[in-house]
Amino acid sequence: MSFELTREFLSSLKEMIALYDEKSVANLVSHLHPADIADIFDELNIEEAKFLYMDLDGEKRADLLIELDDDTRERFLNALSGEEIAKQFIEEMDSDDAADVIGELSEEKQEEVLQHIEDVDQAGEIVDLLAYDEDTAGGLMAKELIKANKNWNIPTCLREMRKQAANVDEVYYVYVVDDGDLLQGILSLKKLLLADKNARIEELYKADVISVRTDTKDEEVANIMEKYDLVALPVVDSIGRLMGRITIDDVVDVIREEAGKDYQMASGIVEDVEPSDNVILLTRARIPWLFIGLIGGIMAAIILGRYENELGLYPEMIFFIPLIAAMGGNVGVQSSAIIVQGLAANTIGIESTGRKLFKELSVAFINGTILSSIMLAYNLMQKESLALTATVSLSLFAVILFASLFGTFIPLTLNRFKIDPALATGPFITTLNDIVGLAIYLVMGRLLYVVL
Amino acid sequence: MSFELTREFLSSLKEMIALYDEKSVANLVSHLHPADIADIFDELNIEEAKFLYMDLDGEKRADLLIELDDDTRERFLNALSGEEIAKQFIEEMDSDDAADVIGELSEEKQEEVLQHIEDVDQAGEIVDLLAYDEDTAGGLMAKELIKANKNWNIPTCLREMRKQAANVDEVYYVYVVDDGDLLQGILSLKKLLLADKNARIEELYKADVISVRTDTKDEEVANIMEKYDLVALPVVDSIGRLMGRITIDDVVDVIREEAGKDYQMASGIVEDVEPSDNVILLTRARIPWLFIGLIGGIMAAIILGRYENELGLYPEMIFFIPLIAAMGGNVGVQSSAIIVQGLAANTIGIESTGRKLFKELSVAFINGTILSSIMLAYNLMQKESLALTATVSLSLFAVILFASLFGTFIPLTLNRFKIDPALATGPFITTLNDIVGLAIYLVMGRLLYVVL
Repeated sequence: MSFELTREFLSSLKEMIALYDEKSVANLVSHLHPADIADIFDELNIEEAKFLYMDLDGEKRADLLIELDDDTRERFLNALSGEEIAKQFIEEMDSDDAADVIGELSEEKQEEVLQHIEDVDQAGEIVDLLAYDEDTAGGLMAKELIKANKNWNIPTCLREMRKQAANVDEVYYVYVVDDGDLLQGILSLKKLLLADKNARIEELYKADVISVRTDTKDEEVANIMEKYDLVALPVVDSIGRLMGRITIDDVVDVIREEAGKDYQMASGIVEDVEPSDNVILLTRARIPWLFIGLIGGIMAAIILGRYENELGLYPEMIFFIPLIAAMGGNVGVQSSAIIVQGLAANTIGIESTGRKLFKELSVAFINGTILSSIMLAYNLMQKESLALTATVSLSLFAVILFASLFGTFIPLTLNRFKIDPALATGPFITTLNDIVGLAIYLVMGRLLYVVL
Repeated sequence: MSFELTREFLSSLKEMIALYDEKSVANLVSHLHPADIADIFDELNIEEAKFLYMDLDGEKRADLLIELDDDTRERFLNALSGEEIAKQFIEEMDSDDAADVIGELSEEKQEEVLQHIEDVDQAGEIVDLLAYDEDTAGGLMAKELIKANKNWNIPTCLREMRKQAANVDEVYYVYVVDDGDLLQGILSLKKLLLADKNARIEELYKADVISVRTDTKDEEVANIMEKYDLVALPVVDSIGRLMGRITIDDVVDVIREEAGKDYQMASGIVEDVEPSDNVILLTRARIPWLFIGLIGGIMAAIILGRYENELGLYPEMIFFIPLIAAMGGNVGVQSSAIIVQGLAANTIGIESTGRKLFKELSVAFINGTILSSIMLAYNLMQKESLALTATVSLSLFAVILFASLFGTFIPLTLNRFKIDPALATGPFITTLNDIVGLAIYLVMGRLLYVVL
């Protein structure tokens, strides 16, 4: 049922394009969904892509543009004039998609495109939408919606809907407003369809409606739509006038991006990259955290240098340096990941920070006891010295406690100061805990070797 | 607009419940959305929760149960009899939600609940749905949908819809079938609403419809709905008969869970835990990977033990052990994360594995050159010996190349053998690269100290 792009398909398509065989190309792609054609586009060069899109009808062409990967779209739009973009793509688009596409262009090109849109209403809507921040409800919403005055009766409503519906792709609800355009409630199409013909909108609509303001953050919009299982959400301005609507498909992208962003942070990747991106992009996304890891490594070297004498006297201490560092990193990543994921999914609960830290300490206490006991048994079996055995187990225990506290406390603190808590995961917490763990181990060793 | 649970709210609610003050409780919660009441439930004990739910009307009560956290729902349902569950919750639910809730119960309790459902049709639908695997389209779909025969005209269709619609909460599409119940296409409510009264379904419906089979995996369902921006997706059996429909709100949960699962794997957490879970759950989710990290640490200790003589002769080599191990881990995590995320989002492209590895090697080559040069400069500035300087920079370079290859190759290979590639992220790849990195460093040192 759904299409899968193969290398065979691609090479025969490229062959047809090379032969300018319009008919075979049309045969091959005309029945495909724009999202599938977008996958093909990613693999074509500009000339091939241009040949392909000329074969599509207007609406499919517009949908294709929206489905393209950001990089591919940028590359493709750069090869077109402002007039081509306006006439061949923008005029067929919904206002929110049009604003997204235009918003990605240089300012100069934005003006060029806007000047070439013939429908002044559409151009005006796009300019309105461009004024909102990309990561707010205003930036997500579309202007196209169906609204009804609460004083209308059903026949009036249907007549007005016929006029409005031409511009709206998918209709899930009719938004009900008063004479001042203030949002009053929603009316489901099901209710409208099944209503008595003499009923008035007033008697049918649901007044208790969830809405967001144009300046609501996109993450909050996603959380609200997810929590309340909504497919569409009306957006109002500061005095409650209906400004637009957000549909779930745009929010699914926000959810996926949001989850992906936290994952990337935890993996030490600073930009949104895909395996198909080029080498320069992939390198640039990765080197910053590697550089921070390198500085951590140099700091570890400096700390070890200060304990050169001890390590010369008790060389067996060296063997467990990787273990202590790795465990500190692992525990810290676990703790911070649970907090970051809880914050993102809004499942953090209302316990106080103190209580969260106490709980985290309890978990660390259990894990630390188990793992330290294993190391105690291992070193006793290996007949290591009492000093080494005690140093490894006690510092492992201490490192697990410290790393847990750091991993919990740092993201919670960042979040309180409105900084993205995901910053505190991955390489950051690993590097920090490597160094702290090493210091704890060396200090513990210096003490215990003297005492025992 | 949306409710936020505060500790003040909770303590005054608990007070009212303690006083059996039904009226105040009803005042406080009756206007809340079931999802908000679910948040409150998480913080109540069983007795308080029972008092609260008795105050809600039937549909809200059923919605509340679905919105509850898995743990809270389990705890709550265990305190109720099969009859209470059937009469007070299940009878008000859609078939998919009812099957999900019943599927979580013990087999004994499942039978008890099913016996107490009065509506035999509903009980039959639930039993049908329970037969599907939870992680397939069959497990996600609801039986409730509106279907029309393609030979009907509009008045017949509206009349039949009135009958069917009573059971269906949200209607997005009418599904069009032939006399044999085979899915023919879909009809949007918008089209139906705006159609000429004399039209026939046949002339209106869209035949080119995307559907999935009951045995399609939930991740694929999510990918299809996301890719094609669908709010509802029909499910058919192996011969194309319409069996049910999946709505986007169920799939948003799959997407969130899927993304969350990869993130947890990368962070070394084996179960789906939340910060509000209890200490035992949180510990159990974390100790397995810590144990594997411990074994990695012991292996590192054994390897270091074999090089005790060299480390005694060239003690400055010890200082850079944490750096080499950490960099191997960091690079490996980055590489594997990009592949795992690409596989999950279906943006991996159609390059061959060989080409992906080559690209990854190019990235590693650039990163390795930059980072090794920095270490070269650092060690020269510190006036370290030529042997140490060369060992650190060359082995850092080698470790970055190896870790990149491992990080790319292992998840791709797991994926080819249908094993979850996310297994190869986080602690696994860190531990592996720690050990390999250490071995490379020590072998390199042994060689270079002899040569230089």
